Amino acid sequence: MTKILVIHGAGMDMRGKAQTEIFGTMTLPEYDAKIREYAAALGIEVEFFHSNIEGEVINRLFAAHDQAIDGAIINPDGFTRGYPALVAAISKVKFPTMEVHISNPARRGTVSDVATACLGSITGLGIAGYALALRGLRDRTGG
Amino acid sequence: MTKILVIHGAGMDMRGKAQTEIFGTMTLPEYDAKIREYAAALGIEVEFFHSNIEGEVINRLFAAHDQAIDGAIINPDGFTRGYPALVAAISKVKFPTMEVHISNPARRGTVSDVATACLGSITGLGIAGYALALRGLRDRTGG
Amino acid sequence: MTKILVIHGAGMDMRGKAQTEIFGTMTLPEYDAKIREYAAALGIEVEFFHSNIEGEVINRLFAAHDQAIDGAIINPDGFTRGYPALVAAISKVKFPTMEVHISNPARRGTVSDVATACLGSITGLGIAGYALALRGLRDRTGG
Amino acid sequence: MTKILVIHGAGMDMRGKAQTEIFGTMTLPEYDAKIREYAAALGIEVEFFHSNIEGEVINRLFAAHDQAIDGAIINPDGFTRGYPALVAAISKVKFPTMEVHISNPARRGTVSDVATACLGSITGLGIAGYALALRGLRDRTGG
Amino acid sequence: MTKILVIHGAGMDMRGKAQTEIFGTMTLPEYDAKIREYAAALGIEVEFFHSNIEGEVINRLFAAHDQAIDGAIINPDGFTRGYPALVAAISKVKFPTMEVHISNPARRGTVSDVATACLGSITGLGIAGYALALRGLRDRTGG
Amino acid sequence: MTKILVIHGAGMDMRGKAQTEIFGTMTLPEYDAKIREYAAALGIEVEFFHSNIEGEVINRLFAAHDQAIDGAIINPDGFTRGYPALVAAISKVKFPTMEVHISNPARRGTVSDVATACLGSITGLGIAGYALALRGLRDRTGG
Amino acid sequence: MTKILVIHGAGMDMRGKAQTEIFGTMTLPEYDAKIREYAAALGIEVEFFHSNIEGEVINRLFAAHDQAIDGAIINPDGFTRGYPALVAAISKVKFPTMEVHISNPARRGTVSDVATACLGSITGLGIAGYALALRGLRDRTGG
Amino acid sequence: MTKILVIHGAGMDMRGKAQTEIFGTMTLPEYDAKIREYAAALGIEVEFFHSNIEGEVINRLFAAHDQAIDGAIINPDGFTRGYPALVAAISKVKFPTMEVHISNPARRGTVSDVATACLGSITGLGIAGYALALRGLRDRTGG
Amino acid sequence: MTKILVIHGAGMDMRGKAQTEIFGTMTLPEYDAKIREYAAALGIEVEFFHSNIEGEVINRLFAAHDQAIDGAIINPDGFTRGYPALVAAISKVKFPTMEVHISNPARRGTVSDVATACLGSITGLGIAGYALALRGLRDRTGG
Amino acid sequence: MTKILVIHGAGMDMRGKAQTEIFGTMTLPEYDAKIREYAAALGIEVEFFHSNIEGEVINRLFAAHDQAIDGAIINPDGFTRGYPALVAAISKVKFPTMEVHISNPARRGTVSDVATACLGSITGLGIAGYALALRGLRDRTGG
Amino acid sequence: MTKILVIHGAGMDMRGKAQTEIFGTMTLPEYDAKIREYAAALGIEVEFFHSNIEGEVINRLFAAHDQAIDGAIINPDGFTRGYPALVAAISKVKFPTMEVHISNPARRGTVSDVATACLGSITGLGIAGYALALRGLRDRTGG
Amino acid sequence: MTKILVIHGAGMDMRGKAQTEIFGTMTLPEYDAKIREYAAALGIEVEFFHSNIEGEVINRLFAAHDQAIDGAIINPDGFTRGYPALVAAISKVKFPTMEVHISNPARRGTVSDVATACLGSITGLGIAGYALALRGLRDRTGG
Repeated sequence: MTKILVIHGAGMDMRGKAQTEIFGTMTLPEYDAKIREYAAALGIEVEFFHSNIEGEVINRLFAAHDQAIDGAIINPDGFTRGYPALVAAISKVKFPTMEVHISNPARRGTVSDVATACLGSITGLGIAGYALALRGLRDRTGG
Repeated sequence: MTKILVIHGAGMDMRGKAQTEIFGTMTLPEYDAKIREYAAALGIEVEFFHSNIEGEVINRLFAAHDQAIDGAIINPDGFTRGYPALVAAISKVKFPTMEVHISNPARRGTVSDVATACLGSITGLGIAGYALALRGLRDRTGG
Repeated sequence: MTKILVIHGAGMDMRGKAQTEIFGTMTLPEYDAKIREYAAALGIEVEFFHSNIEGEVINRLFAAHDQAIDGAIINPDGFTRGYPALVAAISKVKFPTMEVHISNPARRGTVSDVATACLGSITGLGIAGYALALRGLRDRTGG
Repeated sequence: MTKILVIHGAGMDMRGKAQTEIFGTMTLPEYDAKIREYAAALGIEVEFFHSNIEGEVINRLFAAHDQAIDGAIINPDGFTRGYPALVAAISKVKFPTMEVHISNPARRGTVSDVATACLGSITGLGIAGYALALRGLRDRTGG
Repeated sequence: MTKILVIHGAGMDMRGKAQTEIFGTMTLPEYDAKIREYAAALGIEVEFFHSNIEGEVINRLFAAHDQAIDGAIINPDGFTRGYPALVAAISKVKFPTMEVHISNPARRGTVSDVATACLGSITGLGIAGYALALRGLRDRTGG
Repeated sequence: MTKILVIHGAGMDMRGKAQTEIFGTMTLPEYDAKIREYAAALGIEVEFFHSNIEGEVINRLFAAHDQAIDGAIINPDGFTRGYPALVAAISKVKFPTMEVHISNPARRGTVSDVATACLGSITGLGIAGYALALRGLRDRTGG
Repeated sequence: MTKILVIHGAGMDMRGKAQTEIFGTMTLPEYDAKIREYAAALGIEVEFFHSNIEGEVINRLFAAHDQAIDGAIINPDGFTRGYPALVAAISKVKFPTMEVHISNPARRGTVSDVATACLGSITGLGIAGYALALRGLRDRTGG
Repeated sequence: MTKILVIHGAGMDMRGKAQTEIFGTMTLPEYDAKIREYAAALGIEVEFFHSNIEGEVINRLFAAHDQAIDGAIINPDGFTRGYPALVAAISKVKFPTMEVHISNPARRGTVSDVATACLGSITGLGIAGYALALRGLRDRTGG
Repeated sequence: MTKILVIHGAGMDMRGKAQTEIFGTMTLPEYDAKIREYAAALGIEVEFFHSNIEGEVINRLFAAHDQAIDGAIINPDGFTRGYPALVAAISKVKFPTMEVHISNPARRGTVSDVATACLGSITGLGIAGYALALRGLRDRTGG
Repeated sequence: MTKILVIHGAGMDMRGKAQTEIFGTMTLPEYDAKIREYAAALGIEVEFFHSNIEGEVINRLFAAHDQAIDGAIINPDGFTRGYPALVAAISKVKFPTMEVHISNPARRGTVSDVATACLGSITGLGIAGYALALRGLRDRTGG
Repeated sequence: MTKILVIHGAGMDMRGKAQTEIFGTMTLPEYDAKIREYAAALGIEVEFFHSNIEGEVINRLFAAHDQAIDGAIINPDGFTRGYPALVAAISKVKFPTMEVHISNPARRGTVSDVATACLGSITGLGIAGYALALRGLRDRTGG
Repeated sequence: MTKILVIHGAGMDMRGKAQTEIFGTMTLPEYDAKIREYAAALGIEVEFFHSNIEGEVINRLFAAHDQAIDGAIINPDGFTRGYPALVAAISKVKFPTMEVHISNPARRGTVSDVATACLGSITGLGIAGYALALRGLRDRTGG
């Protein structure tokens, strides 16, 4: 069974509590519930990790490198630009990582540094982007 | 029934005939066959359009604006950067457009101008990216 | 009788159908009707040409070079920036070209490349800008 | 009756006395005479103001804000670039300002900062540019 | 027998009709006659193609990819800078392309984007540059 | 008794008359009244100076250098960026200058050149910023 | 009673122990004592938080968002530039944040990224800057 | 007899009163006395003009254009960079202008905009630079 | 006896587990063993610290400032660029820090920000770089 | 008989001894032999000059200016970018210079400074480029 | 008696033989004769040195450092920009160096790197600039 | 026995004679003596080469390529930035080169171009840097 690590970057714990005009009213626990639902439907096992501390995300990625993780999905949010150690960490682990953004950062002129280390990105499709990323990783890793 | 216009930008007609180390051996007719298959499975009607001439792509988008098209998918390929008239055209039509790239342009340092006008992007997942884009547009447009 | 070629660049065929908050609800045929009216009042003969394909605009300019055209007016719209071949073509023809913009691109931070090859520009005065450009060209070419 | 303030920026008092290869031999008093003639023909009342001191131009604009002025025309000349206080002042007054240049600054690579605060610009048509600007402002302000 | 495709980019049809102080009075048909003469002397078969539409040049290159063409020569003229789709197309075809400029663009500060995809360039030697390019391609392709 | 010179830069005389959505409806005389009130409460003597002419502000600063002035407060407004002679003048006088902005220019991407020559800045606190600047200068100059 | 969170960014724990030529000999506990004294005099309740870990500051801000905090004061010190996740976090919380710097970073050419998300800034007034920021926040939040 | 106009730019009236570590203790009246002495020894008539207002310097230059002035010397000081109207004015007058700096601005990384419009510059030689500039202008203008 | 703190930046815990084509197969514990061996031979006492969290490295440096540490060696790895708080921290502590890179980052176009705060750097000599850095620090600190 | 000076820039003496994957195994003496052979076939007299010292190349060019040299060919190699004195020297001599590169520097992102002073360039055709340059110069100089 | 070393940079040996429209017809020996004449009149001893090789100029400067040289004058010509070793050498010697240019490089947009290491510069006064530089150095060094 | 070539770049012959506040009072002969002493202790044979002429350094490197040299150490000093031919030469020779700087150029904002072609660098450790570089090269080349 494909096992995917879902990482929430800095500021994801404010989803539904701030900037709701951009990101909507869904809270982080609701994200997790929805993603878990998507995963169940696709026969994928998911684990969640959130931290506002860049290094803790790096630690989690490196731990996953030594575990039976098939892939990761990251919504870097506050870490989208300007965190080279995190970008390097994504490059170092042996499993592929997909970047997901609920909105389309390109419309706001944001160019993701994280994308340069990922397998690919899915943006602009709301929470459904996670379902597509799960599906894409599963099909690719033969899960 | 959701109706999606699939646009192939400049150079897509060389898929499978050049740069196969990046894009693989699948030819453009094979892309279309595969995408048609995805669409059928999702209950979506697809139309295809390819041109190496920027203005013909713009013409096709504007024609679609006056037709019963629910959304578009574009793999801009050679038009990814440096074609502001095309970018403006995507902004002008009333239906949403998803950008799809088979590979991940960010890894090669390419920043898409087209992305700034799209609903969002899907990159790095090979031909399966089209299936995800079709699904994403259908779910969003209530197809 | 002064003879002026009026060129509509990429996207002008969407006037009145998109971005009406910037450009208003007047459609391209209505532009042409209004400009024809202005021309009649000024004793000027006008011809219209629209294309979303840069090279077709270049072809039309070069054809005019060999015809009895006294001047051109271009609203480059989508071709305002980033189309050096078109800019070079305007420099090559023997008659002067005036650039017209209905709105004022400078307010949106847009610097026209087309302007560098034109006799001059008229911006920000709405459709009336065409009347002024016609008058300016006629007076200058002794029409 | 429409009332227009015509502002001559820094260096306009040297017209006809220097750089005649670019701007011709017409002197500033001759500019004023010609513009007065244009205005009379269009049924517009004009006032003139010239200063080489940026702040005096600002003072005149702010004074006009409290007077029955319907619009302004400015040939910024030496103030075309690099005078943010003047640009801000044009933005602050309640009447529209048209920028006029006798020649086409874009051909010399000059990008006007003043244009970003104006209703629009007219360039490249010689002294006739003032007639067009007067007409454009009158028609717009319902004069 | 070596078979070479000679491509004339945007604006080449104005040769001899404009900017004669830079490019001289030779017209495009005269270019073709001279190049044909060079080719005959070298035992090379040449085909000519001109378009002011970038995408038509791309189409011609891709058609040649499927034909018995041994190499191409392009004078990109108006397409020298700013047309990434054309540059990508030159990279995609299986035969080598030489860039020729009659004058030396480096003297005017122009850096060719087309050159980055070509086998090499010949500049500054007038029409004779074509003879050298034909010879260079023939010797290289063993024609 | 501490004596402070309060300088209003270019455009401050339009406060309450323009851009009221940013700066509110308080006029410059009302600014002065409020600041005088703050000063009285703090036991500080204030003098006011306003000019839209950069050099007059410089003249006033240099005059103050020879008078019993303990410090200055400047809201540079239109002079915030791009006036190096004024910035140099602030550096030259022997008393410290505090910069005050009613709003927070950093939010609009404005980086103050004036700040580089001042003792410090207070921004974003509305008219109360003047009270804080007066207090800060008084405490510092031992007033 | 107004309740203010005072945040000390990276390196503040070295105050009085390093770079005393810029920041003086006051240590961080002495900062806190002095700020507490200011707050008491103003009838404000203060809480202190220091961390050299960006994400812990973000965590503290988000926790405050859910508590009865009326405003925050941050001296970002080592986080002044280059920490976009922290800047985004300040934007997300519902209470206003004032930035305080003991010295004037503009004099050293430092442009604060943190300032772009704050209500405003106070710089250059030494430890007294905190008193002013407390007062400014209290008056603004009606404390 | 050669007649030279000596212009002192913004801030020159603070010479000897500020930044004496760079410019020494000589005051502006002492500059004038010394320059008058140099001029007398060289048989040159000098006139002095100082203003902190850019436009007044422009006015003085244009007045000199209509008078029997053979050349000008300017120490632009605060106007060295960022005053395009002044630079344009120097270009417009019919007599040559020499730029003089007491110190060497290049050592402080300052690149003079004024120099681009002058006959030449003399820097780094203290007050003696004026004697050399007077001599240079006299010999050149045949005075 | 000289006491040196050896700091491993973000990603060092993946040495020998990823990017072995650049950094070889030596793991972080093996680094420590080798460095301990070098230190013993040189009569130096070493302490090790690794964290993927920037602020924890800062905390460790500040703690060392209060301890009997004579110098530090840092291989910043993922922190080489873009972590100004860490760079500032290295500047603040009273002991010197040497930067060590196993490979030569300059060959990959990486310019270290950390180097600007260090005593110096040693790059390109593999694990032996640590021996040289230990020796260099010992000789310098008179250990 | 046409007389051509062939100049080999810095590093040409390592041809065939280093970077053979780019430049092949032909050594500099073999270059000279081959070029001599080309010249003989074309009825051209050639002289060779190599130096790794920029100024010696300049000296040789200036000496040739006073000799019966009809043109020069330079492969600048290590001098391709960053040697303005050499570029100026090529501009100063009275005979034309052709730049030759065995490979195509544009493919490696190298933009030649030397090209800006030459008659033109030939790149990408291997050693045969010299034959073409000799022929081009001969035909042009009427040799 | 003051002893001055006069250095002629790269390309000075072509004076009078090339670019005579900028630099006139005076040859380098004529420069030396004229400068010797100036020096005699001023009671200064001069030595001349010319080289097109940067390092030879450096060698000459360092030799002068150990000799009884009171100052140097350099017309860097081809070395004006882009030769940091020469700039550093001028900074290292114990005597002051004046930079002289016959024309005014600022008019051509050239910013001298050499100027940053010199005492000062004299430009735009033709050969007379040397007389002024000699005088300036003599008066300054008390010769 | 390992044989190392020690190269001193432009300006090294002024060590101990200039800028002693940065580089100390040790002269170049004293450098050589000390390095010879280090080499003897390490069982390494050293040769020295100094030139202020870039091309002579290149010549020496290429000569060493044909001799029994195991490695080189270069303190480029004045050649640290801006000498691409030298950088290319270091890349071409078959032995590794270590860059040594007595001080730490990164602290002065200097980024070495030479470093991009070297095996690695050692900076900031004074003359002892040479001992470490010798040791590093010996251990690496198995000397």
